[in-house]
Amino acid sequence: MSQASATVPTTVPYAELPSASSKLFEAKARKGVTFDQIAKQIEKDEVWLAAAFYGQAKFTPEELAKVSEYLGIPPEETLSELGSHWWPNRGIGPMPPTDPVLYRLYESVLVYGHAIKAVIHEKFGDGIMSMIDCTVTVDKKPHPKGDRVVLTFDGKFLPYSRW
Amino acid sequence: MSQASATVPTTVPYAELPSASSKLFEAKARKGVTFDQIAKQIEKDEVWLAAAFYGQAKFTPEELAKVSEYLGIPPEETLSELGSHWWPNRGIGPMPPTDPVLYRLYESVLVYGHAIKAVIHEKFGDGIMSMIDCTVTVDKKPHPKGDRVVLTFDGKFLPYSRW
Amino acid sequence: MSQASATVPTTVPYAELPSASSKLFEAKARKGVTFDQIAKQIEKDEVWLAAAFYGQAKFTPEELAKVSEYLGIPPEETLSELGSHWWPNRGIGPMPPTDPVLYRLYESVLVYGHAIKAVIHEKFGDGIMSMIDCTVTVDKKPHPKGDRVVLTFDGKFLPYSRW
Amino acid sequence: MSQASATVPTTVPYAELPSASSKLFEAKARKGVTFDQIAKQIEKDEVWLAAAFYGQAKFTPEELAKVSEYLGIPPEETLSELGSHWWPNRGIGPMPPTDPVLYRLYESVLVYGHAIKAVIHEKFGDGIMSMIDCTVTVDKKPHPKGDRVVLTFDGKFLPYSRW
Amino acid sequence: MSQASATVPTTVPYAELPSASSKLFEAKARKGVTFDQIAKQIEKDEVWLAAAFYGQAKFTPEELAKVSEYLGIPPEETLSELGSHWWPNRGIGPMPPTDPVLYRLYESVLVYGHAIKAVIHEKFGDGIMSMIDCTVTVDKKPHPKGDRVVLTFDGKFLPYSRW
Amino acid sequence: MSQASATVPTTVPYAELPSASSKLFEAKARKGVTFDQIAKQIEKDEVWLAAAFYGQAKFTPEELAKVSEYLGIPPEETLSELGSHWWPNRGIGPMPPTDPVLYRLYESVLVYGHAIKAVIHEKFGDGIMSMIDCTVTVDKKPHPKGDRVVLTFDGKFLPYSRW
Amino acid sequence: MSQASATVPTTVPYAELPSASSKLFEAKARKGVTFDQIAKQIEKDEVWLAAAFYGQAKFTPEELAKVSEYLGIPPEETLSELGSHWWPNRGIGPMPPTDPVLYRLYESVLVYGHAIKAVIHEKFGDGIMSMIDCTVTVDKKPHPKGDRVVLTFDGKFLPYSRW
Amino acid sequence: MSQASATVPTTVPYAELPSASSKLFEAKARKGVTFDQIAKQIEKDEVWLAAAFYGQAKFTPEELAKVSEYLGIPPEETLSELGSHWWPNRGIGPMPPTDPVLYRLYESVLVYGHAIKAVIHEKFGDGIMSMIDCTVTVDKKPHPKGDRVVLTFDGKFLPYSRW
Amino acid sequence: MSQASATVPTTVPYAELPSASSKLFEAKARKGVTFDQIAKQIEKDEVWLAAAFYGQAKFTPEELAKVSEYLGIPPEETLSELGSHWWPNRGIGPMPPTDPVLYRLYESVLVYGHAIKAVIHEKFGDGIMSMIDCTVTVDKKPHPKGDRVVLTFDGKFLPYSRW
Amino acid sequence: MSQASATVPTTVPYAELPSASSKLFEAKARKGVTFDQIAKQIEKDEVWLAAAFYGQAKFTPEELAKVSEYLGIPPEETLSELGSHWWPNRGIGPMPPTDPVLYRLYESVLVYGHAIKAVIHEKFGDGIMSMIDCTVTVDKKPHPKGDRVVLTFDGKFLPYSRW
Repeated sequence: MSQASATVPTTVPYAELPSASSKLFEAKARKGVTFDQIAKQIEKDEVWLAAAFYGQAKFTPEELAKVSEYLGIPPEETLSELGSHWWPNRGIGPMPPTDPVLYRLYESVLVYGHAIKAVIHEKFGDGIMSMIDCTVTVDKKPHPKGDRVVLTFDGKFLPYSRW
Repeated sequence: MSQASATVPTTVPYAELPSASSKLFEAKARKGVTFDQIAKQIEKDEVWLAAAFYGQAKFTPEELAKVSEYLGIPPEETLSELGSHWWPNRGIGPMPPTDPVLYRLYESVLVYGHAIKAVIHEKFGDGIMSMIDCTVTVDKKPHPKGDRVVLTFDGKFLPYSRW
Repeated sequence: MSQASATVPTTVPYAELPSASSKLFEAKARKGVTFDQIAKQIEKDEVWLAAAFYGQAKFTPEELAKVSEYLGIPPEETLSELGSHWWPNRGIGPMPPTDPVLYRLYESVLVYGHAIKAVIHEKFGDGIMSMIDCTVTVDKKPHPKGDRVVLTFDGKFLPYSRW
Repeated sequence: MSQASATVPTTVPYAELPSASSKLFEAKARKGVTFDQIAKQIEKDEVWLAAAFYGQAKFTPEELAKVSEYLGIPPEETLSELGSHWWPNRGIGPMPPTDPVLYRLYESVLVYGHAIKAVIHEKFGDGIMSMIDCTVTVDKKPHPKGDRVVLTFDGKFLPYSRW
Repeated sequence: MSQASATVPTTVPYAELPSASSKLFEAKARKGVTFDQIAKQIEKDEVWLAAAFYGQAKFTPEELAKVSEYLGIPPEETLSELGSHWWPNRGIGPMPPTDPVLYRLYESVLVYGHAIKAVIHEKFGDGIMSMIDCTVTVDKKPHPKGDRVVLTFDGKFLPYSRW
Repeated sequence: MSQASATVPTTVPYAELPSASSKLFEAKARKGVTFDQIAKQIEKDEVWLAAAFYGQAKFTPEELAKVSEYLGIPPEETLSELGSHWWPNRGIGPMPPTDPVLYRLYESVLVYGHAIKAVIHEKFGDGIMSMIDCTVTVDKKPHPKGDRVVLTFDGKFLPYSRW
Repeated sequence: MSQASATVPTTVPYAELPSASSKLFEAKARKGVTFDQIAKQIEKDEVWLAAAFYGQAKFTPEELAKVSEYLGIPPEETLSELGSHWWPNRGIGPMPPTDPVLYRLYESVLVYGHAIKAVIHEKFGDGIMSMIDCTVTVDKKPHPKGDRVVLTFDGKFLPYSRW
Repeated sequence: MSQASATVPTTVPYAELPSASSKLFEAKARKGVTFDQIAKQIEKDEVWLAAAFYGQAKFTPEELAKVSEYLGIPPEETLSELGSHWWPNRGIGPMPPTDPVLYRLYESVLVYGHAIKAVIHEKFGDGIMSMIDCTVTVDKKPHPKGDRVVLTFDGKFLPYSRW
Repeated sequence: MSQASATVPTTVPYAELPSASSKLFEAKARKGVTFDQIAKQIEKDEVWLAAAFYGQAKFTPEELAKVSEYLGIPPEETLSELGSHWWPNRGIGPMPPTDPVLYRLYESVLVYGHAIKAVIHEKFGDGIMSMIDCTVTVDKKPHPKGDRVVLTFDGKFLPYSRW
Repeated sequence: MSQASATVPTTVPYAELPSASSKLFEAKARKGVTFDQIAKQIEKDEVWLAAAFYGQAKFTPEELAKVSEYLGIPPEETLSELGSHWWPNRGIGPMPPTDPVLYRLYESVLVYGHAIKAVIHEKFGDGIMSMIDCTVTVDKKPHPKGDRVVLTFDGKFLPYSRW
């Protein structure tokens, strides 16, 4: 099935992503491993790794080489595209999102955004939760009435400059 | 200060919100209490309460009466508007949001949305994280380099129907 | 006509759909069968099957193999793209829709959406009709003045979390 | 409670609706009746009646007079605005909808619209399901795992002119 | 010039149109005939025929074969794409239109749309002019100060359902 | 009924229209006359008159005075607003239109616009159908299967400058 | 350099332009002539000629042949695409324009549009300046503080129909 | 007529314009003078003056006082609003414009914008025509086949910085 | 002039700003002081102060009291609205901006944004320039050929989290 | 690795950029030099040079030849595309920007734009800061709590014409 695997298609739905993204997704499918298993190779979280696969985070050359080797891709193929000279062009997909999984996140901003902002101001003052100095994790919480997704953003509070 | 207090302005920035929202926000400012203190009166979370203040969640008549009394508003004033006959018309504010606090949440969908979706599918299968059967909380995590905002969504996984 | 059939064009109008979608549509046209006939092979409804053809629902590998074989496509061709590693990126076509069939559905939200919402709240309380735990069917109802389309959504009512 | 009732607020969230809409919604809340109970006075369905309350359908003067009287509104108040000289200006609310109940309907067009169109063409030919010669109903279907909303559109198939 | 004619370019400006559209437009240019001349072969109007060329109406297989033969295209080439399995995906071009001919039609909706609606309601009642059961014709009316275009829509009046 | 008539509401749905529009629509409703009956007073077509009521065409002062008197409005009330110093600010309502009557006109541009353009070019050359030097009429054509609306645009062909 | 010149790139930035546009622009660059020099071959203005290069005006076959020959392109190459069967699909580029030269023209509509409209009405009455029967010229006016661009639109005034 | 004149309505169609704009337009209508006659009082062009009436240009206090006196408005009424502390917030009306006069200007950017840009670059180099250091005039050119509007923009060429 | 001063109009063009913004702008105009003079009272920069006037930055209660007193406004009037309970709802005006001053800033993102991003990454690595921990200043630099505006953003570099 | 380097991918994310942009970016990555190092070859600033790489500024042929040679590209390859006949089509990327670095610049217009405008008017009068006669620089300012980005726009003040 080696030849067939050359055509394992990517799950990358956007033409503007780096072509190396396709290679990574295809190799992952071929090897049949999870984001978590790959992430462990470079001591990263699975969400961060998936973001990097989508071109939304930047591997160091060492990380990229390790991941490529683990997945059976010659490192120079991914390094030539996503090496140290490359910088993510962040932000993908249409907005509002059309996919229901993404739309529910968007909906959380529409419905709960102002409440979140009000509570942040009350607890922290005038500033924001950073989305740059921020970690994002997805956990599975078993529950008798149906498992639950626990999505956590842990971001630094940044107070506004006053000059 | 009773007369002055009549002009304590609301922090409700949107004309389409119920006028009772203004009354609640003004009374809160006058009394000088936090969302959390109000929420405790009816055993709810502060984010849920703030959402209800913005017309994005529905009080039971008993809850609304308790909150109104606690804030010094005659319950019939809020019940007449937000009583059992009223249903939230959810979703407020412009999209993309212009306020930086809200925008950062929106940015999280742009940058990490696909990674979150990919990990949810890998861990749970074909379905979504419900934003209806979901709780949202905001916690303060002290940190030597600057306190952190921990924003958590805990939503039920809903698998897609197959019929 | 075997060679010509290789160019039976797809009715898939969107470039972002999986290329396997084209193969399925073309094979269906070649074999001259209906969605219902195909759906019966895997004990599914014709609307669900058509959705899966458009990349809007996920076959199990077994279903995909059965469908492919029934249509005369080597299963590995579709499995390599739409196999277990693949997840639908749901939502297709421009909004507002330009096609009149689709626009009429959109128009139903514009004209009757608020009435539907008001009646749902009155009958069920504060919550939504799930579009995830939902089945969609299209039936033909003969009528002397012209046949009628009966389009039915049967979705679980989800009450809002209160936390 | 007569004076208080004068301030029973409307659930009409859009400024562009006829002011008579507010009167109807307020009177309904005061009397504490359901759409179905009102609709029975004029032998109409509850969804149609709710649509008419939102200015999306047209009462005959006789129907409007009956409904007004039943709700305790002087008929001339509503007739002067929504009488025979008035025609609905249909279509309300933002698109995409921000409210989750409405959004799920919109999502059904995004996700299942093309499948519905494909099945309609296969079963009926080249034409559309009319949204003008169409009835819309909402039913409650009890279910052990949670009640279900059954939303049905029954619309005439209209074949395209060929001239 | 036979070989050169293979590169007679299409006047189809939109990539999403069926490739058979290009073949039809090119063959028409090569043969140097008008829409009206082609339409007469199948007893249709020239506007309907032009719409079919743009993929906005559906030929019967017999019509398509006749048209193809008349234009010197092997029928199987167009039938394989636009045969009985194909359904128009209607609606082409940007909105608002950028081309002045198309924009003037759009402008007619902006400027005269409400007047047309008001007169239709006054003459016919609550309903619409169907754009499905509708014919569209373009006539040339000579006039000493400059010829005039007479554009006529003849559509069935559809009264609204009341249920 | 004199006092009640003071509250006969307008059918003018847009806040940006001249306030004189409301007076004209209200007086028409009170007098119970058709656009055609009013138009006859000044020897104009009913569609043109309705357009003028919506602020989309310009009455001469004499016409406005005649119409006002016929409808029982003191001419100075309308002349002060819509007199010779006033010029229409044309174009009303949202686009795409939400009202189904208006949308069908818009849909005609989406579906048949390119065919109309192609036929105009073929019959007239490179130019446009003027929407300025253009008349618009709405006629009722009785038909056993349902009356038909005949909407006619008669506009001057304007060839493009070549300089 | 003959072969290299085959790759002289076009300045046509939009994919939807006719491919003959590229040939014209490339040949112009190779020959090193100005729009004015080319325009003189067919007794046209340089702005009109540039518009025709961008597919925004229509050459007669004779003009196109002359221009092609002057630029060293075999006439049949451009005639096969832009011959008598071709009609411009006018309107190119994004709106609002992103290029500063184009944006300043757009800005003139935003800032001075209403003043221009008001003066046109005052001087000419109710009507428009035609953009069809209109010439556009660009002149260079030397000035000690910096040369000036003089952009002139000379368009026929078209009074509104009154019917 | 003094009292009636108090209700001479403005032709200012946008709510966001300074209220002094209304006073100026109303006083102009009452006095029955043209933009040109007013402009002559302060030695300005009529288009500039009309722009200033729409809040798109800034009067000096002396100019505003002269204009106000000429029109019979107490200068302090306009100075208090549009005095030296006020700065124009330029840009009015929807884009694309809905009014046909304004739309034709917009269309000139769509159709001739790229040709104008190409000719400017060819004649002047890499830079823009300033819309700040620019004058705009509207002239009437009598013509036997219909008078013509001559609209002229005379703007400084600004070369791009190269640093 | 005390009474007249009550009508000194604000330069605040947006209805959604706090009403205290109007009071501050009006008092500033009445007193005839600059942003810089006011800013000096509380040891802030003029740009920050102007931002606070527009509701885009948050005064401490002490600052607001000082500024109010300096401008002759009773502090309780501004404190009741913009006191410690109030949080800015940041982001004002339409986008793209219609005012040329604002548009030029927007244009800088369109034209130089990617170059700025590329240089930031090259000099600092993968991260952003904070617009929260950022100061903004406007300086006047005299120049013989025309004074220059020097606009400086001084923002902290924030590296992306890698988790 | 010389051959591999032929596939060093570009960091140019937009399809509409000149293909020479890719060559320049790739050669820069291969040679491993900074924008500043390249800019020094032609005595330009690094931001200007990066803008030119993105097709947002225009090299003289001499500059382009020098840069090409320095990077090891045959000058004729870039000159044939970006030579004297080529003019930038300025403005790239989506707006609002999705990339956080670019978005923060956009956010500065939303949050501080009006304050900047107000201070410019107060210091300079009625006019704008030119974005054409403007230089843009990015400096690194070391800071113990984290280095800072200093972004400076130095643009000529242009007063508005008054004619």
